[in-house]
Amino acid sequence: MGDLNGKSLYEKHEGLLSDAIDALRKRDFYSPYPEHPKAYNQEDDAKGKEAFGRLLNLNFEGLNQEGDAWIGEEVSPYWQTGIGVQYPQTSVSTYIENSQKASEGWRNVSVETRAGILIESLERIQSRFFELAYATMHTTGQSFMMSFQASGPHANDRALEAIAMGVQELTRFPKEITFTKPLGKTNLIVQKTWKPIPKGIGLVIGCSTFPTWNTVPGMFANLVCGNTVIVKPHPKSILAIAIVIEEVRKVITENNLDSNSVQLAVDTVANPITKQLAEHSDIKLVDYTGGSAFGNYIEKLNKPTFVEKSGVNSVIIDSVSDMLHVAHNIAFSSSLYSGQMCTAPQNIFISSEVKTNEGILSFDKIAEHIASAVQGVIEHPKMGAGTLGCVQNDGILNRINTGGNFGGEIILDSVEVSNEVSENARTASPKIIKLKSSDLSSFNQECFGPIIFLIETKDTKESVKLASELASTKGAITCLAFSTDNDVQQLIEKEMNAVFTPVSFNFTGAAFVNQHAAFSDFHGTGGNPAGNASFVNPAFINERFVWVGNRKL
Amino acid sequence: MGDLNGKSLYEKHEGLLSDAIDALRKRDFYSPYPEHPKAYNQEDDAKGKEAFGRLLNLNFEGLNQEGDAWIGEEVSPYWQTGIGVQYPQTSVSTYIENSQKASEGWRNVSVETRAGILIESLERIQSRFFELAYATMHTTGQSFMMSFQASGPHANDRALEAIAMGVQELTRFPKEITFTKPLGKTNLIVQKTWKPIPKGIGLVIGCSTFPTWNTVPGMFANLVCGNTVIVKPHPKSILAIAIVIEEVRKVITENNLDSNSVQLAVDTVANPITKQLAEHSDIKLVDYTGGSAFGNYIEKLNKPTFVEKSGVNSVIIDSVSDMLHVAHNIAFSSSLYSGQMCTAPQNIFISSEVKTNEGILSFDKIAEHIASAVQGVIEHPKMGAGTLGCVQNDGILNRINTGGNFGGEIILDSVEVSNEVSENARTASPKIIKLKSSDLSSFNQECFGPIIFLIETKDTKESVKLASELASTKGAITCLAFSTDNDVQQLIEKEMNAVFTPVSFNFTGAAFVNQHAAFSDFHGTGGNPAGNASFVNPAFINERFVWVGNRKL
Repeated sequence: MGDLNGKSLYEKHEGLLSDAIDALRKRDFYSPYPEHPKAYNQEDDAKGKEAFGRLLNLNFEGLNQEGDAWIGEEVSPYWQTGIGVQYPQTSVSTYIENSQKASEGWRNVSVETRAGILIESLERIQSRFFELAYATMHTTGQSFMMSFQASGPHANDRALEAIAMGVQELTRFPKEITFTKPLGKTNLIVQKTWKPIPKGIGLVIGCSTFPTWNTVPGMFANLVCGNTVIVKPHPKSILAIAIVIEEVRKVITENNLDSNSVQLAVDTVANPITKQLAEHSDIKLVDYTGGSAFGNYIEKLNKPTFVEKSGVNSVIIDSVSDMLHVAHNIAFSSSLYSGQMCTAPQNIFISSEVKTNEGILSFDKIAEHIASAVQGVIEHPKMGAGTLGCVQNDGILNRINTGGNFGGEIILDSVEVSNEVSENARTASPKIIKLKSSDLSSFNQECFGPIIFLIETKDTKESVKLASELASTKGAITCLAFSTDNDVQQLIEKEMNAVFTPVSFNFTGAAFVNQHAAFSDFHGTGGNPAGNASFVNPAFINERFVWVGNRKL
Repeated sequence: MGDLNGKSLYEKHEGLLSDAIDALRKRDFYSPYPEHPKAYNQEDDAKGKEAFGRLLNLNFEGLNQEGDAWIGEEVSPYWQTGIGVQYPQTSVSTYIENSQKASEGWRNVSVETRAGILIESLERIQSRFFELAYATMHTTGQSFMMSFQASGPHANDRALEAIAMGVQELTRFPKEITFTKPLGKTNLIVQKTWKPIPKGIGLVIGCSTFPTWNTVPGMFANLVCGNTVIVKPHPKSILAIAIVIEEVRKVITENNLDSNSVQLAVDTVANPITKQLAEHSDIKLVDYTGGSAFGNYIEKLNKPTFVEKSGVNSVIIDSVSDMLHVAHNIAFSSSLYSGQMCTAPQNIFISSEVKTNEGILSFDKIAEHIASAVQGVIEHPKMGAGTLGCVQNDGILNRINTGGNFGGEIILDSVEVSNEVSENARTASPKIIKLKSSDLSSFNQECFGPIIFLIETKDTKESVKLASELASTKGAITCLAFSTDNDVQQLIEKEMNAVFTPVSFNFTGAAFVNQHAAFSDFHGTGGNPAGNASFVNPAFINERFVWVGNRKL
């Protein structure tokens, strides 16, 4: 029976789970899924590419999920043609009914059983990392390396992190005790039990750029807590999460539980179903990654929500000990995936005079350094195309092409960068625009995509003021700061932390602000308008279930 | 300096804090503040009564809080005359400014310092337990014993519980580590620090019946997390929490921090300021206890809220092994403080035939037993008046007096019960009304105060169905169930737990459903319409601050 198989899966993965729980506390590097493709078998890449090829232009049968229709409209940013994969679709009421029915089984098995099934699923997903990489490339436009890492090992890390935090929280209190209260000469003795009761059905809404990395935390957090899940991916970025869900459904079925414990619910841009799902009274939890307008709507549903929205990430340049390395670090972080990461810097605040190893440099000189470093990255034969990847959709491209509206001085224009994967690739290098601090209306919002604003400020104090005000009013997920002065570092940390923005200081070499490592770095702070959720802090789990205590004399 | 004194207070109370954190995990009986008045010095009662007397008809200067006016309109339910205490009042904007200013100090001392100061405050409050008891009696109408226990030791337990959970969560992750990520032949080494950043100013809105017990969890939870607090008590029930706040402010001042870290903000029924405070953009967290209508408004503020609203608590009688004891238990729980406890049973669902130690009894026979037990409680010379206490306000009394609207058959009418404390005491014994399960419109809402509905059902299945539907739609904090059948117990537990309602089985003797012990029983489940908060589960703390991690190369 389900519980027995589940139990044995728990035993199989107990060591990994225990390591993961330990890692949650220590917050040092921990990643059981090797991040480099070279750590896998040599033939895996070719096999994964073939497997991806076999999925194209067909119905995606692997889900084994009933539907009334087959739909799909994903377009590869590399080919700029549809990938032709169709997914089963049914009505919102059927998704909800299926989920309610599956819940009877899923919520009633032990947390250990659920954890065993979920970790086993991650192992199965690991066997498809290369296939997932190609699926991610051809829906998001990420480079092969980023697709592999973000949708494969790093997403698995984040899923495991959610499972581990879930198990830790759900086993936090004793299952039962004999409560003994002294009453003078006698005792009051009561048998007490505690149960974590899942909230109900969770809706997890994906984004177009990171279809698994941003989806699995909420999905696995819900599942480990006993909530059933409906995943509603972005209509232009389904395939990668469909593969993930396929594997989870298979392991659930093997354990004699209802595979509808997690369902994929697809829609199209023309006929979206997200609001209908989100507003349904049986949806008790909503996870969301995407733009702020829709995110604000989600947060006002008066349900527990876990939201990552837009933000405006800043770099503050006060003083640097190695200008070339700093310029390269900023150039790489801003160019990576054409600025389409939620952690990518956008606004680079530079004092009019910056102390460097090359002497005091003016704003213009620093700007030149950065522009030249960006040019270096994009023109680098081994780096350029692979760093940039593709632009996910035409909307982003159009925004950059009408960048003249931002005012200021364009010191590096956006150009196409030929990509060896396909000659049709939709590419765009970062446009770099110089602005004054008074040009607030140009830089006070998120301009998603390959665009960098270099903003001249009077001094670092003004830089910090602008960066912290933007974080407070528009949200921010990261802040990258360069200063050789301890007092200035403290000022930046104090002011940015006060608006719930983490700061990375003096990153060069292999350290990039974009990287948020599972088990160590929280992702999204939950404190400013960039979102109310954080992968994976205790609150990310505790809102998904309720402690109920029963007492018996 | 503040931090030094605070540090020594932390050392002074470190053992207690460590015991409390341990108790949070074990969930067995733990209460460092003895609950019985006899555990204190013999003369304390008289001294406390005198101290209370000295507060009457004067400005409450102890707060040492600035104000533009002195206001107060509390009325003793025992005397039915005003107690004449006036409290300082200022504008909403001044409260907010004061709180922002105090925040600079309060948020920046260590959690250990804050915990030391707060536990020291509890010790000072303990020295005023008797004074607090009289203040509570003459604002809420509770009996002396309940006033002493609820506002004294039990409130201190709940406050300590919030502090302990706070310290546990705020010290959950390392303050700093050296992160080492292997990169083939080299390592990426990053210095990382984590800080819990408080959300901002917390508003804590009190209720008229439990002015300290329901207020201190949110207040101390906010304070330990580094949030400053504005407490807005019910205008008819201020004095007890004013005493608590006085002591906390004194200890904060002694430690060279700004006493406005916690402020008392008073208003009147005619000129309420609660909405103005709650809607202020600088109020980042809201705790609330009270009626559902206002609670629903609070929950829609789109801020983190911790809400305890109305609910309809049920008793299910399936089968009993000792009818007299069961009837007495129900009678006591329903009569205690005239049914004005949020945990008091209201709807007693009784199968038409109940297996008892007296044989199969009909609904009518069970009803007789309960009515007779209630009469026994209220007429008992040592129990009656002290169990009932007074009715807090005329509104509650009027609702009971127009009880004829409920339909059904009144089998015991509400009567005045003379109280030795004062001949003017506003008293009312429970009215008991027999209803059919089809009289849903009579019992499907909270009727706060001394009223008990005995509802005849076809069988226990129908009882469970009604009780769980009511919990799901109207909310419930408790369920008391009597069954000698293991399968029936399991059914009740499953169905009531599914709507996030804890069940107490077969309580007799010294076990009462009303009692929720700190460190063991959660209070409020956060899962049904009775509220979204639970004293004190991890979520009660984790929403009050944000983890921010900084990184340095």
